[in-house]
Amino acid sequence: MKNNRRTAKLTILLLVITGLSFYNGFAINTGNVGPVKSIVLENEKLNVSVDEATGCFSVTEKTSGHVWKSDPWENAAGLLTLTDSKGKKQTINISKSKKIEVSKTGEYTVSLQFSDPAFEDGSIAKGVTISTEIRLNPKTAQLDVEVVDHKPGSFKLSDLRYPARAFSLKTDEDKGAAVIPQKQGIICPSYIFPMNGGRFCKWDDATYNRKSVGSLELFNNGTGLTMPWWGTYNQKSAVMGIVDVSARPRMQYNINNNGQHLFKGKMSTYQRIAFLDPVWNLQEEKGKMRMSYHFIPGGNYVDMAKVYQKEAKIRGHFVSLKEKLKRNPNVDKLPGAIYFGIYGGYPHYVNMPGMAFTFDELKNTIQTIHDDLKVDKAFVHAWGTFSNFVPHNHPISEALGGPEKLKAAVDLAKSYGYLYSSYHAYSPMLENDPNFTTDLMQRDADGNLMNTGSRWARVDPKFQKGLAQENIANEISYLGLEADITDITFAAYRENGKEGRIELAKYIDSFNLVNGTEHGQEQWIPYFDMFEGMTYLEDRPLSVISHPAPLFNLVYHEAIANFGKIQDPDNEVTANGDFRIKALRSMLFGRGTTIFFSPYEFKGMRPMIEMARDLVSPVHKETFYSELKSHEYLSVDYKVQRSRFSSGTEVIANLGPVAQKIEDGTSIPEYGYKITMKDGTVKSGHFQVSLHMD
Amino acid sequence: MKNNRRTAKLTILLLVITGLSFYNGFAINTGNVGPVKSIVLENEKLNVSVDEATGCFSVTEKTSGHVWKSDPWENAAGLLTLTDSKGKKQTINISKSKKIEVSKTGEYTVSLQFSDPAFEDGSIAKGVTISTEIRLNPKTAQLDVEVVDHKPGSFKLSDLRYPARAFSLKTDEDKGAAVIPQKQGIICPSYIFPMNGGRFCKWDDATYNRKSVGSLELFNNGTGLTMPWWGTYNQKSAVMGIVDVSARPRMQYNINNNGQHLFKGKMSTYQRIAFLDPVWNLQEEKGKMRMSYHFIPGGNYVDMAKVYQKEAKIRGHFVSLKEKLKRNPNVDKLPGAIYFGIYGGYPHYVNMPGMAFTFDELKNTIQTIHDDLKVDKAFVHAWGTFSNFVPHNHPISEALGGPEKLKAAVDLAKSYGYLYSSYHAYSPMLENDPNFTTDLMQRDADGNLMNTGSRWARVDPKFQKGLAQENIANEISYLGLEADITDITFAAYRENGKEGRIELAKYIDSFNLVNGTEHGQEQWIPYFDMFEGMTYLEDRPLSVISHPAPLFNLVYHEAIANFGKIQDPDNEVTANGDFRIKALRSMLFGRGTTIFFSPYEFKGMRPMIEMARDLVSPVHKETFYSELKSHEYLSVDYKVQRSRFSSGTEVIANLGPVAQKIEDGTSIPEYGYKITMKDGTVKSGHFQVSLHMD
Repeated sequence: MKNNRRTAKLTILLLVITGLSFYNGFAINTGNVGPVKSIVLENEKLNVSVDEATGCFSVTEKTSGHVWKSDPWENAAGLLTLTDSKGKKQTINISKSKKIEVSKTGEYTVSLQFSDPAFEDGSIAKGVTISTEIRLNPKTAQLDVEVVDHKPGSFKLSDLRYPARAFSLKTDEDKGAAVIPQKQGIICPSYIFPMNGGRFCKWDDATYNRKSVGSLELFNNGTGLTMPWWGTYNQKSAVMGIVDVSARPRMQYNINNNGQHLFKGKMSTYQRIAFLDPVWNLQEEKGKMRMSYHFIPGGNYVDMAKVYQKEAKIRGHFVSLKEKLKRNPNVDKLPGAIYFGIYGGYPHYVNMPGMAFTFDELKNTIQTIHDDLKVDKAFVHAWGTFSNFVPHNHPISEALGGPEKLKAAVDLAKSYGYLYSSYHAYSPMLENDPNFTTDLMQRDADGNLMNTGSRWARVDPKFQKGLAQENIANEISYLGLEADITDITFAAYRENGKEGRIELAKYIDSFNLVNGTEHGQEQWIPYFDMFEGMTYLEDRPLSVISHPAPLFNLVYHEAIANFGKIQDPDNEVTANGDFRIKALRSMLFGRGTTIFFSPYEFKGMRPMIEMARDLVSPVHKETFYSELKSHEYLSVDYKVQRSRFSSGTEVIANLGPVAQKIEDGTSIPEYGYKITMKDGTVKSGHFQVSLHMD
Repeated sequence: MKNNRRTAKLTILLLVITGLSFYNGFAINTGNVGPVKSIVLENEKLNVSVDEATGCFSVTEKTSGHVWKSDPWENAAGLLTLTDSKGKKQTINISKSKKIEVSKTGEYTVSLQFSDPAFEDGSIAKGVTISTEIRLNPKTAQLDVEVVDHKPGSFKLSDLRYPARAFSLKTDEDKGAAVIPQKQGIICPSYIFPMNGGRFCKWDDATYNRKSVGSLELFNNGTGLTMPWWGTYNQKSAVMGIVDVSARPRMQYNINNNGQHLFKGKMSTYQRIAFLDPVWNLQEEKGKMRMSYHFIPGGNYVDMAKVYQKEAKIRGHFVSLKEKLKRNPNVDKLPGAIYFGIYGGYPHYVNMPGMAFTFDELKNTIQTIHDDLKVDKAFVHAWGTFSNFVPHNHPISEALGGPEKLKAAVDLAKSYGYLYSSYHAYSPMLENDPNFTTDLMQRDADGNLMNTGSRWARVDPKFQKGLAQENIANEISYLGLEADITDITFAAYRENGKEGRIELAKYIDSFNLVNGTEHGQEQWIPYFDMFEGMTYLEDRPLSVISHPAPLFNLVYHEAIANFGKIQDPDNEVTANGDFRIKALRSMLFGRGTTIFFSPYEFKGMRPMIEMARDLVSPVHKETFYSELKSHEYLSVDYKVQRSRFSSGTEVIANLGPVAQKIEDGTSIPEYGYKITMKDGTVKSGHFQVSLHMD
């Protein structure tokens, strides 16, 4: 057991170090001096002990007694990436600096300065200085950690992970999880547990390779973190960090990985741990590089989301759907609605053969949804109604039947109480557009075209409102629209071009329609009523080592309606599940059903539309304006889950193939559910796949 | 239409160049001299015209008249990557060399030498020479293209794409596909067509970003090409290249991409095309860097597979299951068998709580499969029967019940005519194994540990046979085994350590059991009867722009039985589909069903086991020893497919959500099938998902 013996030794060593540090933490208060000196900040909730030798700090959350420790691998307060004299990028431990100053600069403040850090070969990065500050809130369990200054000397500083590997979980010792608001949200348990055979293989393997190590960017449409916070918890305590966002760190994750990739030609000597680090970009000189850590005794991912919910309200992202309803009664057409995306190949192609629908066909589809499928509430989104390519969303296509025919379809939808929007987008510029022009594209300071590799995001944001003005007011007025979907522009929240995007959002919002957009970010919630979004990506490694958790909806459920994304609709079998799994998860997470189809597939959508109507819509309707109060995993394999809404509605669903009993002995069938409606009515049932041989 | 106008201009220019080159190709024969000189090789099937100025060549496949052209983007005969004097890697066009010599060195041979190629800034890579040869078979439609020599001068040569961007398809003009034996095989159509809405979005988007550009390695378990050939076809003609494999190129793919990533700050001026290039590694000095191109008038992916099937037989990879049956009558227990993987957390963990089964439970499971589920034929693979971690597959665990109990389970399986194997692997070395040792691990020439990042492939291949000898003979004899599964070692076919792996394969084969292994590669077919493998990866970009096609089985169906992979079994909903889609595809592709589960899930597997028994097994049974003769896509959206086997069996299946009519007017229902058995019996039916509300 050579390797494990090493790990065991390391653990004992760590315990000794921690014990000492802890001792000295209190020691200073009583005047004792031990072999390792520490400076202590303390209030009723927390005791923060800063090691004077390394600048590392640990936090005792006093209610539970749990000690959240600093980097267990290298005792690094921070990890600095810079370019060495040979032009090579190196990542170095700032706790190995020639000079480390740790001083108590206030009753609740410690200032730290790391000067002249050492490269791996022992040479010194002379003139490099990192200054940080640790500030304890005098009363609450909040600790602010900030990088206040950095001096590059003659080096080029790239980025800084600070604090590094703090508040980590020990794999298979801590029974908890890393909590990451990636898309709708995931949690990554810090221990193994029974699960589906194939999934277990991939899960365990991923933590021993690079699939459980990486970084995520904030507010993008790709890898993206949708909220500026993350954290870890075990059975005793939780800690979450909220980002200031005037500076935008990436989040580095290491989930149950032992850092083998840091060792060449030998085995890792590190223990498997889970940690989440902020990575501060030192090349950009802007914003406060500050994390506010909140410690929650006995907390978990739900408590973290609720802490952030308060902050989100302060930051102004939170405008409730009830408030939106007051301004626009049509918002009430969303609760219980099925969101239909009727695709005609647009915006990729105009009038694509085999894909495009006529306005008569669109009308028939709407009629079938109402008369045959008995759908009460719907939001119909028709893709491809204009004869120009985006971003020029006009004129209404004559080839598909002309404006009058489209108006007839829209009128019919409205007569049913359905919402309707044609597809709009103001940021694309497509190579196959006969009116392609680089004139509308964004350029950098040197005049070079930007975003050449992303045809959907090429139009300079400053032109986007103008492109909307070309048509949207006329269209709303002619068709009598009550809803609008604007795609793409609001999928991310980028600093570059922000002003133009906000202008567009305000302009769209000025019509006071029911507004929807793709993906969405928290900053856009005040302008919109629904997001097509927060849908998990299929090709990201984190899905292998995580469980979907409704973090975004725990914060924002009563502020924005969420539906599925058109690339991963409920009707399609994807890595996120089939219709059964998606329908059950929709109810647990408080999400509406999305059916997105090409016209030739419509008949095949019918059984799923009927199932969504009977199962998902009633829950969506009654929980729409409610807070998602809680979410729990009830089975060890995380398949059986329970959500509770402030409406009083309770949803229990089993996303797995085998019936399982919950705590009160109730058996939840395979792909089944038990729902308690707010009036106390209980509904139960399950999905079934069967083979019908003629 | 600025951009399209550019493209149009380029097209006209290319037509002119091609016209001239074509003209001169014949011109030389008639003594004319034009502005562009060409050397021509010609036989009854092909006319090969080599441009003397650039060294590029085009091939007229005379039966169809189709001209397969050289690089349409840069007129590059080859693309050489080398390190320039500043230490920076550059990729340069060898057709921009200072000196290009093209000479006819035989009636059917042209020799080419590219000397002193130019860097992008115009400076010359002096002393660099690339020598190639183009040899036309005197009688057949085969053209060999070989890199015969390369001189680096004072530079470091990395790799060479040669021929570069040859035989490409023009996107949306050529109605054809790029054919890639990735895992079981895929085809990437060169045109857009109606498809599911969400899929269309992803498909079209991928071809405008980096998701449709990349490279694949031969014979690995990751990105991997499983066969050394690939090709392109349109409605007139097909061309495929077979790799010599004494050198192992990677395959570079560009699927309908316009090379936008090659342009910074401006729009690409290239047309969208699909091409597949061999990338020769010039740093390794070994093997023949040769591609043999075969031109097939009116051909497609099926014809390509059949051309390679002949070559596979010559290369000795092809040993038929009928021959294997002659040597071992137990092979006949495979046709129609359901492959059960019963997982207990092993080999990841020994006796994992909540996951491990006892031998009594194993026996009960086997009995249930037989008595209750009425499964006639099965291969039971029990994961986790030893008290040591792999690679030490012994002794049989006392904690689970001891050898006698396991023997009782195996005896029961045998009494039903089932095959049984415990899980074996000889290449892993796990950190959590109490007997972890680096002593068995492979080391490089400097004594550094190799494969530290891949715990499943750490044991030096030279030790693997010895590890098998520790136990397997005893186990076979004590349990009376008729089958063996050895995991991992044969998932790839790597040059490094090949000898040790072949020794292990021969040793396992010496027991004359029914042998199975994970994934598998063609070189291992002679030693094995079944592969758990050829399963598509979930996280590879190619899946977004491709359709699964049974390329491997079109070559090898009657030589090796294929079942699903344990990480993507038929019972799990993944990106490859749910049970419905996987079952239907199994029948189309000639594959057996895999049910892989953790013991606690067994009850949930029952409905799927019964459906596999009734639907997939009878087809598998009757086609097992047959050749997969053909495979076709019958609907424009590629969802309805037809396969024909040499047994006379015909399978038509619809993998999509909506019924579609095929050419004779028959409607194939959503997730449905029509099967004509060899005796003429017709079976039809479909799967259904339903909601049962209590």
